Amino acid sequence: MSEAGSGRPTTIVLDCMGSDHGPLEAVTAAAQLSIARPDFHLLLVGDDAQLSPMLDELEYDPGRLSIRHTDQWVAMDESPRGVFDRKPEASILVACKIVSDGRADAVVTAGNTGGAILAAALGLGRIPGVRRAALAAVTPTEQTHGPNQDPFSLLLDVGATLSASARDLVTFAIMGSAYASAISSNPAPSVALLSNGTEAHKGPAEVVQAHRILAGLSEVNFAGNVEGLDIPRGSVDVVVTNGFMGNVVLKMLEGIGEVISDLAQDAYARKFLWRFGLTMLSSGLRQIQRALDWEEYGGAPILGFAQPIIKAHGRSRAKAIANACKVAAKASRSDMIRVIERAVARIPDEDGEEEARTRDP
Amino acid sequence: MSEAGSGRPTTIVLDCMGSDHGPLEAVTAAAQLSIARPDFHLLLVGDDAQLSPMLDELEYDPGRLSIRHTDQWVAMDESPRGVFDRKPEASILVACKIVSDGRADAVVTAGNTGGAILAAALGLGRIPGVRRAALAAVTPTEQTHGPNQDPFSLLLDVGATLSASARDLVTFAIMGSAYASAISSNPAPSVALLSNGTEAHKGPAEVVQAHRILAGLSEVNFAGNVEGLDIPRGSVDVVVTNGFMGNVVLKMLEGIGEVISDLAQDAYARKFLWRFGLTMLSSGLRQIQRALDWEEYGGAPILGFAQPIIKAHGRSRAKAIANACKVAAKASRSDMIRVIERAVARIPDEDGEEEARTRDP
Repeated sequence: MSEAGSGRPTTIVLDCMGSDHGPLEAVTAAAQLSIARPDFHLLLVGDDAQLSPMLDELEYDPGRLSIRHTDQWVAMDESPRGVFDRKPEASILVACKIVSDGRADAVVTAGNTGGAILAAALGLGRIPGVRRAALAAVTPTEQTHGPNQDPFSLLLDVGATLSASARDLVTFAIMGSAYASAISSNPAPSVALLSNGTEAHKGPAEVVQAHRILAGLSEVNFAGNVEGLDIPRGSVDVVVTNGFMGNVVLKMLEGIGEVISDLAQDAYARKFLWRFGLTMLSSGLRQIQRALDWEEYGGAPILGFAQPIIKAHGRSRAKAIANACKVAAKASRSDMIRVIERAVARIPDEDGEEEARTRDP
Repeated sequence: MSEAGSGRPTTIVLDCMGSDHGPLEAVTAAAQLSIARPDFHLLLVGDDAQLSPMLDELEYDPGRLSIRHTDQWVAMDESPRGVFDRKPEASILVACKIVSDGRADAVVTAGNTGGAILAAALGLGRIPGVRRAALAAVTPTEQTHGPNQDPFSLLLDVGATLSASARDLVTFAIMGSAYASAISSNPAPSVALLSNGTEAHKGPAEVVQAHRILAGLSEVNFAGNVEGLDIPRGSVDVVVTNGFMGNVVLKMLEGIGEVISDLAQDAYARKFLWRFGLTMLSSGLRQIQRALDWEEYGGAPILGFAQPIIKAHGRSRAKAIANACKVAAKASRSDMIRVIERAVARIPDEDGEEEARTRDP
């Protein structure tokens, strides 16, 4: 871990392989950052036969950018099950191992999500006390959040842990709080459990139990339960749920964005006034689209591992990957991992927790 | 059960008590229907000291409307737990018992949802083979559904059964299909499970198991899994999930409606062009609002009981309650209950089902 302003740059390992648009986006991002950010070092992992010719066409600072060759990687549509037995030198696993060996500070990838989670578990290792990882994503909100007035809140888990026990949900609350604090400079983000009612007794057993634990945990600015309508409103900074629910919620928001976009195109074809109406509304729609736009926010952190790892969207262009690198560096320079480790150690061992765990598939 | 066009009218028992706007809305709906619908008989359950003076002010057909007095009812904010021990003559329980005694065909209430579900369990009894009830609601969609081109699909469960086993989910699929078929004249509505991916192996264990059972059940037009983005799109006619997920999804849609409405008001105050844009968009927004509007669609069926029961929204006005009565009559005159009973009897007893049941809280 390095500090901003100190001598040593922050080294970001960039997995260049397996994304939708090929390695050029990651290579371009790295080349630009090597010039623009003297506090960064970029270590590209991937097929040198592809990366070097791309680099030759770009302007970059060779003192701040290097390549670690491998000819194996996880394809976007490949099942992560057993993939690292078949491909022990897969780029994402190599990237994680470079960080855990202490030769770099954080990982960024735009490749296969399941592969990234598995590589982090194998290569980075979990923060002591964390049993399950969580993938966090931003969702657009009406209310703004934190000192930067961000028009979005953080939702986790969105797909790493389908069924979460009470202890997992408490851990996700701690991790979401620490990440939001590190990235958005909000010293005490408000954190809530997603449930079917605001009262403490509402929800499945694991949510009720997590509520009770969080109410007694001073490390989290716990706001109680929120309901579905609080997600678009943005009543809190961090919303905690299991990966099954979070996945459905996130994809619903994507779907609503698509429907708005379809309505606009449909209107264009059929009715000028509709189109005109959408143009009038465009500043509001732009705000919503910006919040949903991975290009602007640089990807989703995979939380629970001993070093930061950021999953950029598979469709990411160079700008999005560069933003993901900046977010990864910010997380690495913060005390996020130590904050999580300390808070997780304070989760009480409750009766019934083991029973709840055995209910997970 | 009575047939349309036959001699005997369909008798709807209307629980008049405990809704947000008081008994007048239900009384007004009943008075209007007693004149407009010679094929209906309305039986009002509630406090005669309130109902009779209201009725005296209205035009109605005394041959098609009667009152069953009770001075007990469940309040809107009352916990359903043990309420019928304290109030054995509560209006919703009396209403259900009148139907199960064969003196009426269906129940309509705008009162406490939990009270209605519990009263149905105690008063109506479950359809043989149905273990858990489901509350179904309509959600607005981009695509239209069925021969009436309805701009909405059916979502269940939205809050009756928080944790659903595989067998419960299969039962909900059967019930949602039978209800959609009865109400929207769609002979084979498409039905899908909500999951975190379209593949058969995606989702928690109970969803994977329900998928396998539904794939072999000819009674349901099973379309496989859908994801969160299919909810606003409206890819299928009926979406099946547990009550926890369904509640969050439904309230998220409500919240998004509110945000759109807030944006409009905010725009009015601050910027004329925004307001103008929303006006231009109004035909589209009206379509969305209409789909979310309980006034138009008459409420949510509570499925799984031996006779139809429709829960109108607590905020319902007379028009919404009258629509709920029409929906209740349509369900009663259809073969919905028999269709559900026959299909549920064909759910295979799978290994692991009992294990899955013990995981419910």
